[in-house]
Amino acid sequence: MRKITVFNYVTLDGFFAGPMGEIDWFKSIKKDDEYNKETHDQAKTGGTVLYGRKTYEMMKSYWPTPGARKNDPVMAKVVNNGEKIVFSRNLRSVEEGPNWKNVTLLNEITRENIMAIKKKKGKDITIIGSGSLVRQLTELELIDEYQLLLVPVVIGMGKSFFSNVKQMDLELIEAKSYENGIVKLRYRPV
Amino acid sequence: MRKITVFNYVTLDGFFAGPMGEIDWFKSIKKDDEYNKETHDQAKTGGTVLYGRKTYEMMKSYWPTPGARKNDPVMAKVVNNGEKIVFSRNLRSVEEGPNWKNVTLLNEITRENIMAIKKKKGKDITIIGSGSLVRQLTELELIDEYQLLLVPVVIGMGKSFFSNVKQMDLELIEAKSYENGIVKLRYRPV
Repeated sequence: MRKITVFNYVTLDGFFAGPMGEIDWFKSIKKDDEYNKETHDQAKTGGTVLYGRKTYEMMKSYWPTPGARKNDPVMAKVVNNGEKIVFSRNLRSVEEGPNWKNVTLLNEITRENIMAIKKKKGKDITIIGSGSLVRQLTELELIDEYQLLLVPVVIGMGKSFFSNVKQMDLELIEAKSYENGIVKLRYRPV
Repeated sequence: MRKITVFNYVTLDGFFAGPMGEIDWFKSIKKDDEYNKETHDQAKTGGTVLYGRKTYEMMKSYWPTPGARKNDPVMAKVVNNGEKIVFSRNLRSVEEGPNWKNVTLLNEITRENIMAIKKKKGKDITIIGSGSLVRQLTELELIDEYQLLLVPVVIGMGKSFFSNVKQMDLELIEAKSYENGIVKLRYRPV
């Protein structure tokens, strides 16, 4: 069965976004060649990506553009051609195009929906951003790995993808720090 | 001037305690010889310790007892004889005894109070536990280093010592993981 890995930035006080979804604190992330190369290499491997509606729209507004395709052609190809599943209660359809393919819309986050995706053959599954989706899959105990990029910033209040989940022990798989002060933490639920 | 270092356990979702101050999740911390030796060696070096009232009372109810002194005589000596400063609005006096010495009570957390402590000669200053004190000193920008022991557990809700502080960038000094899954993170405010 395919693994679901969460890939997300979090502040030192545990938030993936400010109270209104703000991610202006991403500006605190300093350029770091080793870090950039590693995350880039990892993303390039492809595989299915799950998105919540907001992150999906952010991706769609950027990666198919000529600017993005010129700026980072390898990554643009991966994102634009790779399998994308977007979860939204309200969207009725998703648009595709020559530079935005392989999109599936699902209106409900249910155990059955997710298990069906996991059971399909293919590369592993990643959730990028999409904090609300992560929280719901955490509650359903369907996340196989959390890959958290701990940014050296405190924002005082915000949204946590563990908010109100019941107590959960995790196992540390890896901790690695980078010159820019980011600490990559990989955990699996016990 | 003496440095103030915070030494505290935090959950992966950023809490030093549950909503009612619960620390039952400390039970998730597995025994680890390397980790225990390091934190023990560090604590043994002594120096002034600042406490909030709750942590102070917890310490006082344990370390002077015959059990604690038998169980860990070196540490008991350090805690019981070392300089302790407790902050409490309500306490009117503090008791000392042959096994509990060098206690100072301060009723107010003010910049002046803290600066006076920092300016006194002596070893560096540590805050152990005492989340509410940490939060107030964070707001006053008087913490020189945060040493956070990230426990591989999620509790869903609780108290954060960064709650409602204004956005703050930090510099990572060290990240080290242990066999028991704890990640020691050391930061200094930028």
